[in-house]
Amino acid sequence: MKITILGNNSALPAYGRYPTAQIVEINEQLFLMDCGEGAQMRMQQFGIRSTRINHIFISHLHGDHFYGLVGFVSSLSLWGREKELAVYCPAEIKAFLQLQLKWDLGFQIIYHIISDAERTVLIDEEKFQVSCFPVYHSVPTHGFKFIEKKRKRILLPNKVQEYEVPKYFYKNLTEGEDYIMKNGDVVKNDWVTKDGHPNKVYVFCADSRYAPEICDDLREADIVYHESTYLENDQHKATERFHSTAREAASIARQSDAKKLLLGHFSSKYKDLQPFLDEASSVFEPVELAIEGSVFEL
Amino acid sequence: MKITILGNNSALPAYGRYPTAQIVEINEQLFLMDCGEGAQMRMQQFGIRSTRINHIFISHLHGDHFYGLVGFVSSLSLWGREKELAVYCPAEIKAFLQLQLKWDLGFQIIYHIISDAERTVLIDEEKFQVSCFPVYHSVPTHGFKFIEKKRKRILLPNKVQEYEVPKYFYKNLTEGEDYIMKNGDVVKNDWVTKDGHPNKVYVFCADSRYAPEICDDLREADIVYHESTYLENDQHKATERFHSTAREAASIARQSDAKKLLLGHFSSKYKDLQPFLDEASSVFEPVELAIEGSVFEL
Repeated sequence: MKITILGNNSALPAYGRYPTAQIVEINEQLFLMDCGEGAQMRMQQFGIRSTRINHIFISHLHGDHFYGLVGFVSSLSLWGREKELAVYCPAEIKAFLQLQLKWDLGFQIIYHIISDAERTVLIDEEKFQVSCFPVYHSVPTHGFKFIEKKRKRILLPNKVQEYEVPKYFYKNLTEGEDYIMKNGDVVKNDWVTKDGHPNKVYVFCADSRYAPEICDDLREADIVYHESTYLENDQHKATERFHSTAREAASIARQSDAKKLLLGHFSSKYKDLQPFLDEASSVFEPVELAIEGSVFEL
Repeated sequence: MKITILGNNSALPAYGRYPTAQIVEINEQLFLMDCGEGAQMRMQQFGIRSTRINHIFISHLHGDHFYGLVGFVSSLSLWGREKELAVYCPAEIKAFLQLQLKWDLGFQIIYHIISDAERTVLIDEEKFQVSCFPVYHSVPTHGFKFIEKKRKRILLPNKVQEYEVPKYFYKNLTEGEDYIMKNGDVVKNDWVTKDGHPNKVYVFCADSRYAPEICDDLREADIVYHESTYLENDQHKATERFHSTAREAASIARQSDAKKLLLGHFSSKYKDLQPFLDEASSVFEPVELAIEGSVFEL
């Protein structure tokens, strides 16, 4: 799994920083998380093959999280897309797109409307799962959780040789099958393999006030992205506007036993972002800034 | 008058080029011509004080000319704007904005709906005039004409001394008044002044096929911006899609006796833009490319 940051700023673009958008890549599939204005330009700039995006997730109805969507969908159409596109979003997004995209796009948009405060699995495939959960902002807002399933078992080289399992059957072993020898004896799978790598988990927490009630959804994630619109000395603004400070984001990561924290959604009042890193790392480590163009691998 | 190019590409952003948007500055007032996605980022990048924009003009209903509008208007609201904003546009634009901007913006948007094929004066003030005229695209589309009025007469230094006009009256002379001497004799204005500089004219021709019928609206303009989506070897595409080639744009400039031609709205199929300049300049000169960030003074 790989995360590419397209936009990391809050509502107003500033200092060359764009509003929220991220790409999650799992197994050659790309998922677009929010789509602030200019997201498609950032994709071009960072070499994202956006025709490989089949799923888009919109966290909430604030413009800095979706104003780039109509332009991006329009571009997909102009590029000649035929494959259907799934959009997971509040109901109003469907109305916005339908009003502005009245021609025949050449492909179908399948809308999956997310209801207020819904917690559900949105996609469950063999290799990954995506779910949503409520976070706490001034309008109904959702976080998204990506699980890359790493279920394959790992071969024990000495053991497969010892039991003389033929090589053509190795793939079946990694998928958990037992091997039956020509004489009918069974080589139990767990004699010749061990547990595979644990699942990889990325959690994207869009705009939210400090809300420890979300920690269960973040539990032990490999990377948690949590907004940190403000620094601690603007705590009153954060509270008033249902946003978080860097310290609060770090506290959520600590309480969730996350393995790494990514900070983003910086207010346009801050030119220098280093203080966000300093403030958060006094509470939780490791922490990194979601700098646009940077890629985080899990 | 000063023109700043914010976006010069056609529908699909490409090679770092953004969709159509331009700033026209007259007398400290800024006018936004079209507002493709990312226009507000470009304004920041090029140091445009966008709070000084009081008038926005949208040429037609193709997304690459207005998808940046909702984000820009939203940003004006977040910046605390109180002054009303005039938007000259097709009726649908009003519906798009009203659907997506449902909160109290803090300022009023005054919509001036431009009807199909309308030719009219939109603004007529002491120092400038803006009008619209039809161009010929696949949907109803308008060009916009800016006239900076340079009506002040120019003093003839020897003559004002000869007739002993006092200095305090010079300003009145430039505004065309006669001077009445203490003894009642009249110094006629045209004895002591000459005609002022001619008006400056900029014409913005948004998407249009080759249409010599627009030449009257462009007549003798100081600068004509005309789209040139394609080169001549893609003439069939230009014709089919109601766009122009560089050669056609140059032909329009020549037939209009324009003083300078600006080319823009380049198709994303072209990385190198030099051939546009070469093709057009074989027909008309001077011609320049509307490179993003460049400023053209009249």
